[in-house]
Amino acid sequence: MNEIRPINWTGSRLELLDQTLLPHQHVTVRITDYRAAAAAITEMRVRGAPAIGVTAGYAMVLAAAELQSRERDHFIGALREAGAHIAAARPTAVNLGWAVRRMMRVAEAEPDPGSIRPRLEQEARRIQEEDEAINRRIGEHGRALMPADGQGVLTHCNTGALATSAFGTALGVIRAGWEAGGRFKVYNTETRPWLQGARLTSWEFQQLGIPATLIADSAAGVLMQRGEVSCVITGADRVAANGDTANKVGTYTLAVLAHENGIPFYIAAPTSTVDLAIAHGDDIAIEERPQHEVTGYGGTPIAPEGTPAYNPAFDVTPHRYIAGIVTETTVCRPPYTESLRQAVDAA
Amino acid sequence: MNEIRPINWTGSRLELLDQTLLPHQHVTVRITDYRAAAAAITEMRVRGAPAIGVTAGYAMVLAAAELQSRERDHFIGALREAGAHIAAARPTAVNLGWAVRRMMRVAEAEPDPGSIRPRLEQEARRIQEEDEAINRRIGEHGRALMPADGQGVLTHCNTGALATSAFGTALGVIRAGWEAGGRFKVYNTETRPWLQGARLTSWEFQQLGIPATLIADSAAGVLMQRGEVSCVITGADRVAANGDTANKVGTYTLAVLAHENGIPFYIAAPTSTVDLAIAHGDDIAIEERPQHEVTGYGGTPIAPEGTPAYNPAFDVTPHRYIAGIVTETTVCRPPYTESLRQAVDAA
Repeated sequence: MNEIRPINWTGSRLELLDQTLLPHQHVTVRITDYRAAAAAITEMRVRGAPAIGVTAGYAMVLAAAELQSRERDHFIGALREAGAHIAAARPTAVNLGWAVRRMMRVAEAEPDPGSIRPRLEQEARRIQEEDEAINRRIGEHGRALMPADGQGVLTHCNTGALATSAFGTALGVIRAGWEAGGRFKVYNTETRPWLQGARLTSWEFQQLGIPATLIADSAAGVLMQRGEVSCVITGADRVAANGDTANKVGTYTLAVLAHENGIPFYIAAPTSTVDLAIAHGDDIAIEERPQHEVTGYGGTPIAPEGTPAYNPAFDVTPHRYIAGIVTETTVCRPPYTESLRQAVDAA
Repeated sequence: MNEIRPINWTGSRLELLDQTLLPHQHVTVRITDYRAAAAAITEMRVRGAPAIGVTAGYAMVLAAAELQSRERDHFIGALREAGAHIAAARPTAVNLGWAVRRMMRVAEAEPDPGSIRPRLEQEARRIQEEDEAINRRIGEHGRALMPADGQGVLTHCNTGALATSAFGTALGVIRAGWEAGGRFKVYNTETRPWLQGARLTSWEFQQLGIPATLIADSAAGVLMQRGEVSCVITGADRVAANGDTANKVGTYTLAVLAHENGIPFYIAAPTSTVDLAIAHGDDIAIEERPQHEVTGYGGTPIAPEGTPAYNPAFDVTPHRYIAGIVTETTVCRPPYTESLRQAVDAA
């Protein structure tokens, strides 16, 4: 079993395993500039809600190294602008803004301008360490939800070490179930258009030695109809206070299919993904990504030239389709307005 | 507007527009041998239930040319074996076996062995001509179901001229609606893994001058949630007596999503696709296609080497999700056990 560590901080620079090139090329991107870190998030060289939170923490350290000055207010003001730039790299995942705000609070609490950068570095490392610990706790809470031996679990997109800093959320639950001796079947969608499932999740399962069968997104329905799936589990990019969940496009479809086939549908996400400031899913901004992701693959055009495409990166699954939300504190159950608040308070 | 004619009979050979290479390469495959015609169906150089029916007709003419002998019983027996070989090229679409049986009935009814080949040629041409006429009638019956101007229709896979011999079924209904002056929006899925939507349907709409927006299969849900889709229409590979419909994998998913969002879901198919001998969808054989269609695209691997994949080519949509089945005789409505039988009898 190979542990995947996609985000590494050397003390002066950030090293990211370039997720646009996996699984066939393993290239490390070396980043010394917060703008380059923000660009890496926008370009999805690093992706996954927790992973972009961790990256944003180190991006703030790089910003502090670049912008530091003896004049504290000026320094804090410049950091705040850099933070706004980083937070704007992608709109849907709450972890990005969450990490930037957490880093800013640390900067603002530090009276000595000369100590801000080292304090931020400490905090960014802490976000990364906490992420792994949180994911392992999500795995412990969630593993009891995994199916019996021989039955199947279906997951979507990539929610493993590549999407976090280690272990993963939904993929971490599956891993925890296997590490506890479960021998259930694992299915994962390819997750068009960006193919996080085919490229990243299939690779992670291979590294972990967990057998997993790849399906086209459209084959989830027939798999459920045939009784091959006993539960579905995905990650989340933002969970509203009522449990409505924004996640990779296609998640809503899986939730509706699961509901129609009487199969429980779960979300696995750290409490940092819960946005209590947003009452319900209608208020979550959904990123639209470039059309060429749909009209082609990896630089190869598929559709005829000039074909227009609609490419929402996420969708919102209404809470009524969700049987449980696995966090690091507990498995939240409906009504989510209460259980999510309690989980966040307990975190 | 360019009319697409994917299947052409020259009098001695069959010419197929190779659908594995569209839209970027336009290559005509010249076929003089019934085994090559069957292989072209298996390899999906020609695909779409009505189109493989038309191809099977000409394949029987090629078989007759090769196998003809003065001894009538021997000739008929050899033809029957060739017919069984052709009918086995793909398992799900009923049109393949239907066309072979229709051709065999003509052969068996012809007493003079020397006249069998010309009679079969006449019958194959008739199947092709009827197909276009039938599709145009499907379009006439179905166009009233198309949405009001500015509202949207969603379709799946390819059901245009490329899937038939001309005009198309579900795509033909959309075309008929536009030709009658409707200015509704058109969305089409890319239809992984074989990308019939992105490669073939987007190209057909472009040739027809009908603006159509391409989406990943997974984006159908969010499109419906946002009210962008007022109706869904797809083709069919086999319709059971009770209305359960086998069609391209992902059709069931669209039907469930439409149901959940209160959107009517329609099938458009000739009565030759209705298989009254099959009571319900559980009895329809579903083809599983090679894993490499899911693990890669166009020869380019996507998933890591050694990733197993599950690749059902079709799924079955239970009749309760289907608001109407548009045939050349009428729009069949529930209960389908009665309305389909009437439509078949009237054809």
